[in-house]
Amino acid sequence: MSQSPMDVALMLAADAAADGEAPVGAVIVCDGEIIAAERNRMQALADPTAHAEMLAIRAALAERGTGRLDGCDLYVTLEPCAMCAGAIAHTRLRRVYFGAEDPKAGAVENGIRLFDQPTCHHRPEIVGGLGEVRASALLRKFFSRLRR
Amino acid sequence: MSQSPMDVALMLAADAAADGEAPVGAVIVCDGEIIAAERNRMQALADPTAHAEMLAIRAALAERGTGRLDGCDLYVTLEPCAMCAGAIAHTRLRRVYFGAEDPKAGAVENGIRLFDQPTCHHRPEIVGGLGEVRASALLRKFFSRLRR
Repeated sequence: MSQSPMDVALMLAADAAADGEAPVGAVIVCDGEIIAAERNRMQALADPTAHAEMLAIRAALAERGTGRLDGCDLYVTLEPCAMCAGAIAHTRLRRVYFGAEDPKAGAVENGIRLFDQPTCHHRPEIVGGLGEVRASALLRKFFSRLRR
Repeated sequence: MSQSPMDVALMLAADAAADGEAPVGAVIVCDGEIIAAERNRMQALADPTAHAEMLAIRAALAERGTGRLDGCDLYVTLEPCAMCAGAIAHTRLRRVYFGAEDPKAGAVENGIRLFDQPTCHHRPEIVGGLGEVRASALLRKFFSRLRR
């Protein structure tokens, strides 16, 4: 891969911002290959569940056809929320790399910390802070414009 | 409505079981009208995120086109998991009626109890135990067959 998966996710996050969507991008890698690359489309689809991770997970499942993403890794520019963390557990993703922490709605290192709960039946490896500076800058810029 | 929304959800759950899917059905009602009726399709779609609630929520959003389900009520035969509870909060559903409790993976009255968490920004009204006996019977029958 010429660009790292997180570089691609960050480019997608920037694309989202350019379209007026909160800047979050997500990429799924399997056997060293990007099999899904999506970004937030909540506004475009009028669907508040159309988070980058959910769209990438469904695209990767369609690509694989096995009903699981075990052995695959997710790169996402923002800490996943409870919905997305639940989807990550259901699909048995191997590893989650995320950029910025989300103290308000994050559910991995913040809030409910889903993967640490006894009722969570799959805990992926978690690597936080990858591309954090760029991911946070995109989010800050986007939300400061909204507040003007 | 000739049948109650939970009756319809239970019929859909039975349909799911007949197709080899875990028996869960979900119906969304808005202004006294059913605007979405779905059931578990995880096997058929090879997608472990294709829970009845997620499919019903997306169908209802498509029907409404406003990006929100405020004022709408969800009827689901099984207590929602973390993913589905997250989607319920994101879409601002007004009320959630559920049938059987799910001590293993439920996230409303069990496990993470998402709507009781300070990081959860929308708490729907919750009515548990509606149609519980029939919902539990369907689930028990389905899982006892699997174990044979």
